Amino acid sequence: MSDGAQSREDFEARLRQIGAERYHDKHPFHHLLHSGGCTPDQVRAWVINRYYYQSRIPMKDAAFLSRVEDSNLRRIWRSRIEDHDGTEEGTGGIVRWLKLAEGVGLDPDYVSSARGVLPATRFAVDAYVRYVREQPLLPAVASSLTELFAPGIHKNRIAGLLEHYDFANPTTMSYFQHRLTEAPKDVAFGLAWVLDHAVEKRDQDAAAAALTFKTEVLWAQLDALHSAYVDPGRIPPGAWQPGEGLL
Amino acid sequence: MSDGAQSREDFEARLRQIGAERYHDKHPFHHLLHSGGCTPDQVRAWVINRYYYQSRIPMKDAAFLSRVEDSNLRRIWRSRIEDHDGTEEGTGGIVRWLKLAEGVGLDPDYVSSARGVLPATRFAVDAYVRYVREQPLLPAVASSLTELFAPGIHKNRIAGLLEHYDFANPTTMSYFQHRLTEAPKDVAFGLAWVLDHAVEKRDQDAAAAALTFKTEVLWAQLDALHSAYVDPGRIPPGAWQPGEGLL
Repeated sequence: MSDGAQSREDFEARLRQIGAERYHDKHPFHHLLHSGGCTPDQVRAWVINRYYYQSRIPMKDAAFLSRVEDSNLRRIWRSRIEDHDGTEEGTGGIVRWLKLAEGVGLDPDYVSSARGVLPATRFAVDAYVRYVREQPLLPAVASSLTELFAPGIHKNRIAGLLEHYDFANPTTMSYFQHRLTEAPKDVAFGLAWVLDHAVEKRDQDAAAAALTFKTEVLWAQLDALHSAYVDPGRIPPGAWQPGEGLL
Repeated sequence: MSDGAQSREDFEARLRQIGAERYHDKHPFHHLLHSGGCTPDQVRAWVINRYYYQSRIPMKDAAFLSRVEDSNLRRIWRSRIEDHDGTEEGTGGIVRWLKLAEGVGLDPDYVSSARGVLPATRFAVDAYVRYVREQPLLPAVASSLTELFAPGIHKNRIAGLLEHYDFANPTTMSYFQHRLTEAPKDVAFGLAWVLDHAVEKRDQDAAAAALTFKTEVLWAQLDALHSAYVDPGRIPPGAWQPGEGLL
């Protein structure tokens, strides 16, 4: 171990601490959503904006693949793209998200057009895709480790939405239900890979910075959503207005 | 149809004519290889250098995926990556190419290290990956259409190698055998996509230029191989020397 590097256990604890302090499960918008406090239009705004994030994740993962020289690593990572894009037409996470969109009364064609997405959402998500396209492989993988914290929020979300909203049912919740098994599988690999490759202090620092960056990408999306549709509720020019894009 | 644009049929004929004039089935190295005229070391040099091309193809296809916003198009295109990287460890085109490497007496670890690859091979292949990463989607797809001409060369190759070389058997030929079914499936989609999207003259010109570029990428690799290992046989500094990397 080089000067200042952490042990594998301490470094993993440091990564988990980043989630404990910064993951977006602590954002007020999620508290509002999961406790039944959102209006139907606030739920719709969340579905529209979160769709943009979902839709870019396979592009982010393909950008990663395009830089990996190891066929085995590519094959393992490729399953993330399969989870989102599916194995045949009408399957995969993106289609499941559009079922949620329909469930909350939105036209899936409107949602998938990505019209009305908040500019701040685009900026944050596009920054993430660009980060994975341009950074070294270690930070690129480390930025995926917010999945360490995802199962908790997905369980809370499924329970909270089912308890509080009429639109919640097995069909509209299927995206989150699938993520309960997909994310742990992915993150088990990603975490082990990061712990194996971040042994020197500067690599551990780079991986921690990447995970911090990713928590910022997620948090910024909810800040923008909250500002536009909750408090102060100032919808920026061009963004979705309640009443648009309905079924 | 805009001024100067070709009909769908004429434009397809123009693309096929590019192959008729420029595809690397006409390169003297391939004539030598398929007619049994290569020494074992010349075959090895071909296997080592062609491996580099194979190994970058999934990265090229992932670079394409990373820029496609349409989940359906991504899912269809993803099968190309699956063909090369396989669906589980020990499967896929890259593994099959390494079986050929073993069959000609090369250590597959040496081949997959890509040490000894001719610099000109790297330059040509890397130019192709960069092209697909950076060009608009239409030229990126059009550059894949050399697959229109691949089944012919693969059939000739299988027949020629089986007739003339002791190393040729179903195991070492399995890469080419698989390509006989993979390439036509891929190119049927790619050709239809290009014909659908290249309707204006400037798009048809861009697609034709992309296919021409790709034939140059393939031809340049064989010119470098021929120069280094056949005539004049001047191996550049650092490139594979006969005797290296053997099993």
